[in-house]
Amino acid sequence: MSKPSLPQGTRDFGADTVRKRNYIFNTIKTVFELYGFEPLETPAMENLDTLMGKYGEEGDKLIFRILDSGNPFSKDFFVSLSEYLKYYSEISKRSLEANDSYDKKPLFEKPLWETNPEIIEAIAKDMQLPTGDRSKYLAKIKHDVSSKALKYDLTIPFARYVAMNHHQLTMPFKRYQIQPVWRADRPQKGRYREFYQCDADVVGSNSLLNEVELATIYATVFEKLGMDVEIKINSRKILAALAEVCGGSEKMVDITVAIDKLEKIGIEKVKEELVQRGLNTEQIAVIEKYLLINGSYDDKLQQIKLLLSESETGKLGIDEIETIVNSQLTAHHSPLTIDFTLARGLNYYTGIIFEVKAKNVQMGSIGGGGRYDDLTGLFGVPNIPGVGISFGVDRIYDVMEELKLFPADVRAGTKLLFFNLGGAESKKAFELMQQLRNKGISCELFHEQAKFDKQFKYAEKKQIPFIVIIGTKELESNSCNIKELESAVQETISFDALLSRFS
Amino acid sequence: MSKPSLPQGTRDFGADTVRKRNYIFNTIKTVFELYGFEPLETPAMENLDTLMGKYGEEGDKLIFRILDSGNPFSKDFFVSLSEYLKYYSEISKRSLEANDSYDKKPLFEKPLWETNPEIIEAIAKDMQLPTGDRSKYLAKIKHDVSSKALKYDLTIPFARYVAMNHHQLTMPFKRYQIQPVWRADRPQKGRYREFYQCDADVVGSNSLLNEVELATIYATVFEKLGMDVEIKINSRKILAALAEVCGGSEKMVDITVAIDKLEKIGIEKVKEELVQRGLNTEQIAVIEKYLLINGSYDDKLQQIKLLLSESETGKLGIDEIETIVNSQLTAHHSPLTIDFTLARGLNYYTGIIFEVKAKNVQMGSIGGGGRYDDLTGLFGVPNIPGVGISFGVDRIYDVMEELKLFPADVRAGTKLLFFNLGGAESKKAFELMQQLRNKGISCELFHEQAKFDKQFKYAEKKQIPFIVIIGTKELESNSCNIKELESAVQETISFDALLSRFS
Repeated sequence: MSKPSLPQGTRDFGADTVRKRNYIFNTIKTVFELYGFEPLETPAMENLDTLMGKYGEEGDKLIFRILDSGNPFSKDFFVSLSEYLKYYSEISKRSLEANDSYDKKPLFEKPLWETNPEIIEAIAKDMQLPTGDRSKYLAKIKHDVSSKALKYDLTIPFARYVAMNHHQLTMPFKRYQIQPVWRADRPQKGRYREFYQCDADVVGSNSLLNEVELATIYATVFEKLGMDVEIKINSRKILAALAEVCGGSEKMVDITVAIDKLEKIGIEKVKEELVQRGLNTEQIAVIEKYLLINGSYDDKLQQIKLLLSESETGKLGIDEIETIVNSQLTAHHSPLTIDFTLARGLNYYTGIIFEVKAKNVQMGSIGGGGRYDDLTGLFGVPNIPGVGISFGVDRIYDVMEELKLFPADVRAGTKLLFFNLGGAESKKAFELMQQLRNKGISCELFHEQAKFDKQFKYAEKKQIPFIVIIGTKELESNSCNIKELESAVQETISFDALLSRFS
Repeated sequence: MSKPSLPQGTRDFGADTVRKRNYIFNTIKTVFELYGFEPLETPAMENLDTLMGKYGEEGDKLIFRILDSGNPFSKDFFVSLSEYLKYYSEISKRSLEANDSYDKKPLFEKPLWETNPEIIEAIAKDMQLPTGDRSKYLAKIKHDVSSKALKYDLTIPFARYVAMNHHQLTMPFKRYQIQPVWRADRPQKGRYREFYQCDADVVGSNSLLNEVELATIYATVFEKLGMDVEIKINSRKILAALAEVCGGSEKMVDITVAIDKLEKIGIEKVKEELVQRGLNTEQIAVIEKYLLINGSYDDKLQQIKLLLSESETGKLGIDEIETIVNSQLTAHHSPLTIDFTLARGLNYYTGIIFEVKAKNVQMGSIGGGGRYDDLTGLFGVPNIPGVGISFGVDRIYDVMEELKLFPADVRAGTKLLFFNLGGAESKKAFELMQQLRNKGISCELFHEQAKFDKQFKYAEKKQIPFIVIIGTKELESNSCNIKELESAVQETISFDALLSRFS
């Protein structure tokens, strides 16, 4: 029998971790509810078609596919295998021809087509499929043995849900979702194959009120968690306007990619990259001005207005930022920052974008989001705009551990351990415990009559703060001996006093 | 673009359902915690080796396997395919020989071995594997393309966890676990491919105190949920003793299988089945006496003692039942019932077994469990006995829906909708909302300035109980108009009065 183990990149969560994680989840959930967001849960599995092609070529490869159940000896399955066989023989042939071995140790001395040309012919004929490239075969084989997959994020299943149910939903539809997702990424420190996402989205509304409320949700949650953070905002429209002013909108990707590296490589290297990407001196000068925008909210807004004065898109973007800045969010000590260098990669955002970073600790972003125009369009239901934010719960957990931010009472296990001193004593203990439990106090009776030392160790290891001893003497006088482990204070009190002390 | 859909046997849960389900989960969880059980979460994925062979041949087939990521063009994968090919040709050959077509439409006119004997030889040689039967090939193919699977229940992952961590765990280890599991069962009414299990187990203790507490947990949870239930108990030792008395322990399966059908087919048919299973008239007379045991706890215990007086195992089993009966559980109105016909299928239980049924409604068991001797032995760590119970959450949900047992306040969504009447009014509304939210009151501002009718409909559809209107007039007088939708009572109150009314 081999030693049991966990799949790579997955984790068991013991009591302490579950409780701390639930503390984070519950804090976020409570705030979501205060803003009128409602819970949604979607299954772990989605149809492969729902997920494929939604995360780019790299993302598609990281989707965990589920093997179809039932009889794999179906014709479809066999067709896939035939294709595979054909592909393999093709590879072997090319490999031998090129004298460049595809596999270090080929399975056959000679390629199949050479030893058995007829079988290949037979299979090819049966397949009735044109010759294709490797990735096409791969996709077909995978698809034929697998029509379901584990969800890769919460956004696409949410879009699928909205597309399926939009007639019944109350628009604007505000939902939150806290569930695990799976990615076949190479596991490394802080990156897991199964991890939780925690999203809130509003769809069916173009109102900036949503952005204001989502930013407020970020601020409120992190304040409740005791975390000092910076909530960066920018607008994709401002980035688009910058591109417009500097070489046309087709330069947007080049500019965004370079700007995205600012924090890592510094302004001089960014300028070098912009040169390599074909921007001229004049354009780079504008971008440098853009990157050097600084000061208070008002200072920044004044400078950006000047720089992008000629772009209509720019005006729209600046309006978005101003609306959020003019909400209560910019009060003293507000965590909100305008950061025109924020780009949020090359995804589907079209308006305001968010990113949250923890202060006083080295850690990537712990939250992000933004506005998108048409997510459900992917599923045939166009014109439902939306905006959403996401919390990076694993990173938030790590930050809170590092800065010791979890409150002590998160660890709310058993409060009292009753020692087991035999039948009659235990019966009394059980009776008292039921009364305490009715008042919401967690307690346990040690499972067997054992030496004090053993019972004491159990309390210690489980970090139970109080032990209660009821022996023959105590039973007669309707009293018990109670000891607080931390202070080592010990006293004899009546059963009634015990019951009234805890509530 | 095809219409989006859900995989067979899976479900989306909207807000109302999530809240009701959480009400059940939280009730159970709170009670588990009161008894000193601690939370555990294990990943959705387990190594295939951890799960295979643990649920019987039928169970193995229902495990959802996950396709390995990375390059499937590995040698291992190809070997599986070769095997498959060989197997297929073997089938075709036999099928043609027997003139009994395995597949309605064979892929090849002639079997492979006939058209291309060499290729089969080459593959067979490469495989270096003896000829095997279908299920072996199937297992090998599946295994080579899949080394992970979705968990099938919570018990085996728990055993795996205990086996991996037993040195660090405080024994007896009391854990609860509320997580989804997956089964490739044919979906039907009330049976899903993804569903939650909700388990509590104690391992590392032989004490019957655990059984007493688990029975109490059942009683407490269902009382809190307002469900009228029957908690049936029996002991596997009593069933073993009955077999001992009637034809020897090798008859236990026959007797148990027949008894298990009592409720469905009645005593006469059970007796017929016992005859068919080779029991003689005398033995069947004893079994009939056993099945007819009736009356109060004491009556039942007296009768069973008489019937099994010659069996040592029987005495042990009766002791177990008596201990539980003599605990506080048998108070007036106790849901506990001794049911000697309870068998709990053919699983790993060795002592007390439990089953819970809802009264006043047609529904299978809504909970079950029992004592097992050596679960972690499967993973190389023997001698850790345990006992556990499980709640059937989907069925509990259905019963509560049918009997309308969910409390009205489960639906705790947005409490107040502020109408949107423009910039200045909304700013005031937002300010008031922040104060209400700080007090834990969920509220929303309609996302855009729209006709009253539209805003009103939103409140209605989302079942928001109060609407608040702040127009120019109200803004000037620091007051608002508040309307309760159900009563249609409307009044104008000051902002301060609004804030103090809700808390």
